[in-house]
Amino acid sequence: MKTVNIGLFGFGLVGEGIYQVLNRKPQLNACISKIVIKHPEKQRNASASLFSTDARDILEDPSIDLVVELIDDPVAALQILLEAMNKGKSVITANKSMVASNLPLLMEVARNNGVSLLYEAAVCGSVPIIRNLEEYFDNDLITHVTGIVNGSTNFILTQMSKQGLEYETALLKAQELGFAESNPSLDVSGLDARNKLKIIILHAFGKLIRDEDICVKGINSITKFDLDYAREKNLVIKLLATCRVNKDGSMEEASVLPTFLPRYHPLRLTDNEFNGVLIGGELADEQFFYGKGAGRYPTSSAVLSDISAYRYNYRYEYKKDIVTVDQIQPVQKKCFVSFKKGQYFDFSRLGKIEEAYESDQYGYVTLHGPLDKILAECKQPGFSVICYSGQVVPLESHENSPPIALDIPTDYRLGPTESANSGLFAVGI
Amino acid sequence: MKTVNIGLFGFGLVGEGIYQVLNRKPQLNACISKIVIKHPEKQRNASASLFSTDARDILEDPSIDLVVELIDDPVAALQILLEAMNKGKSVITANKSMVASNLPLLMEVARNNGVSLLYEAAVCGSVPIIRNLEEYFDNDLITHVTGIVNGSTNFILTQMSKQGLEYETALLKAQELGFAESNPSLDVSGLDARNKLKIIILHAFGKLIRDEDICVKGINSITKFDLDYAREKNLVIKLLATCRVNKDGSMEEASVLPTFLPRYHPLRLTDNEFNGVLIGGELADEQFFYGKGAGRYPTSSAVLSDISAYRYNYRYEYKKDIVTVDQIQPVQKKCFVSFKKGQYFDFSRLGKIEEAYESDQYGYVTLHGPLDKILAECKQPGFSVICYSGQVVPLESHENSPPIALDIPTDYRLGPTESANSGLFAVGI
Repeated sequence: MKTVNIGLFGFGLVGEGIYQVLNRKPQLNACISKIVIKHPEKQRNASASLFSTDARDILEDPSIDLVVELIDDPVAALQILLEAMNKGKSVITANKSMVASNLPLLMEVARNNGVSLLYEAAVCGSVPIIRNLEEYFDNDLITHVTGIVNGSTNFILTQMSKQGLEYETALLKAQELGFAESNPSLDVSGLDARNKLKIIILHAFGKLIRDEDICVKGINSITKFDLDYAREKNLVIKLLATCRVNKDGSMEEASVLPTFLPRYHPLRLTDNEFNGVLIGGELADEQFFYGKGAGRYPTSSAVLSDISAYRYNYRYEYKKDIVTVDQIQPVQKKCFVSFKKGQYFDFSRLGKIEEAYESDQYGYVTLHGPLDKILAECKQPGFSVICYSGQVVPLESHENSPPIALDIPTDYRLGPTESANSGLFAVGI
Repeated sequence: MKTVNIGLFGFGLVGEGIYQVLNRKPQLNACISKIVIKHPEKQRNASASLFSTDARDILEDPSIDLVVELIDDPVAALQILLEAMNKGKSVITANKSMVASNLPLLMEVARNNGVSLLYEAAVCGSVPIIRNLEEYFDNDLITHVTGIVNGSTNFILTQMSKQGLEYETALLKAQELGFAESNPSLDVSGLDARNKLKIIILHAFGKLIRDEDICVKGINSITKFDLDYAREKNLVIKLLATCRVNKDGSMEEASVLPTFLPRYHPLRLTDNEFNGVLIGGELADEQFFYGKGAGRYPTSSAVLSDISAYRYNYRYEYKKDIVTVDQIQPVQKKCFVSFKKGQYFDFSRLGKIEEAYESDQYGYVTLHGPLDKILAECKQPGFSVICYSGQVVPLESHENSPPIALDIPTDYRLGPTESANSGLFAVGI
């Protein structure tokens, strides 16, 4: 085990936490010798001699062998990482969007310079997903990974579901408690989860995937109507990031989708700001990992694990043959689509309808169909799309099935009581 | 990454599974070149030339660098491991009782010979507990580990709780389904969980602990009465293995105990043959790991992970300063003690009684007191002891508390209805 000399970029909550732990734990054999910050005027809880505003004080110091980057500017962060690696320094970052957007470049520069590039904190904070995909399950045939990887949206959905809050109120509460950013668009649109899924796909399957090949639906269109429906059916709604391969190793599904989970689903109990991930392997079956996905201490924990691993020259191996995913065959899913009164259209052109209902304010259909088409046709405000969990359903299994009887949800207590047939659409079979 | 030449001892379900996977996955760079078995007359699904009944065919073959031991005889297994390591071979085993009983010796021989000694499969099958304690959380101050580490007892308790089976019927069902051994005493007495806990304590805290310093209570005295009580109180009973350190790093608790879990406890949903473990860290807070703890494929998965790690010369580092635990201060716990009518004695000498009840067949008390004393005084058949989950309660916090009012569980619907005072003991305050 070597002694590590660290140059730190950024001294926010995580940076300061790491500085404190390394000071308190000399047995880690790692010390921070320089900290580059943007605002020298701020009061800092560390010796003034450690600080600088000049990146060169780290990048050009040959005694520094590890750069830990914890700043919030992705462009500057990328530049720092590339320059550090090109100078032979190993790097650790927690910046998920920057990592997700630049995976091929970062991997190449790390490999060319023979340095470590570690980013456990970028996915699910303290939950050791990347490390376990890389190290522990590297020999097992991983079939799928599915999980709640964004704490902000999970907090909002939990508050809507358990406290009966409207979306806007729940978002505000998340922001007040520090579980959502002041600009929450990356989270609520599902793009943050997509970024993490890209990194997961690389480590689970050795595949590089383009943004546009991941089906993404956020939570910002989910209404109290949807949550009431879920409650009536004893389901919960979670934003799941999912990747799954076919038996031949090709990608079957890569998606970020609001999803109904049944009563005994392990992810159902991952509430509020927590993250939970299921890794499915051919031998190990499903493994469930759960913990805090973000925040000062969980992020610090993940960064410290990377520092600790670096002392043993740890590097991601990725999978042996990295391939770029060309295109994923469209998947068929069972979806629930809700809409405001007046937005009804002929859903039967999107798939086979199972159930349909309309009250004087809202309506919904449940249907089996191609996911991309359903998402594309229902992306206007007022529509909300929620998938049902479970394996992707191949189209054939529906084609020979008997006509679906009209399933009137009689125990459905939403909206004013209406006569049995009013407000029900003909089912398009 | 090196090519590994493996000598395998034992060709049961796990051994054969590993042989098949390694054959199917040449990219793992590992092959089995010799298999030593006890019964050459059995039909085997592998080339006859691979098999031998002479251990020397592996131990004295210098081309074999890794010995994988999967036999069910702990004495022979130990001898094989020691001899293999002394000949410079690394070793992998799944034999938890043998590992738990011989940790200092095994560690010393591995260190002296500079070889790897890996045993992930010995604790929680495919759930990567040891690896994560060793690698991922090695820098974080781990405060406690608590979990369901024995699938047989968890299956029995789940069946008793969910199907209303009696202990003997549930045990029989577990045996029929292969979730319990024909001789289940090691499992139901809690000793198997204790063995796993010893290994967990070593990797979490760097401490070697003696068997007698772990408080152990099995599940074989748990009755339907206890489970009915739990159901009424919306609790479940799980056999938890727990270790916890004080702020100064000394051991606070090491125990295997039937435990009541409240409604939202993450371990509550770990049912049937599954295992679940919570790792508590100062920074990462609680991380939850869940998966299959035993069986052919989960065990194979863990052994394969060890083989895979060995290709990179992976070794357990343990913690830097291994210490032997001298003695643990007795802990105070809130316990539930149930008993058959006629077995009542003055429980107030064991602690402060909170609740007491007796029907015409059974009775119970709940009390706060020193765990070792309660277990020792209630070990006769007919008594069952179940702890309440949560932090250990320091004695002082009770000493100044006001006298506890007699808490008659009015909603308690067990046994024949009786008048409010009949069958209730005076509470010993």
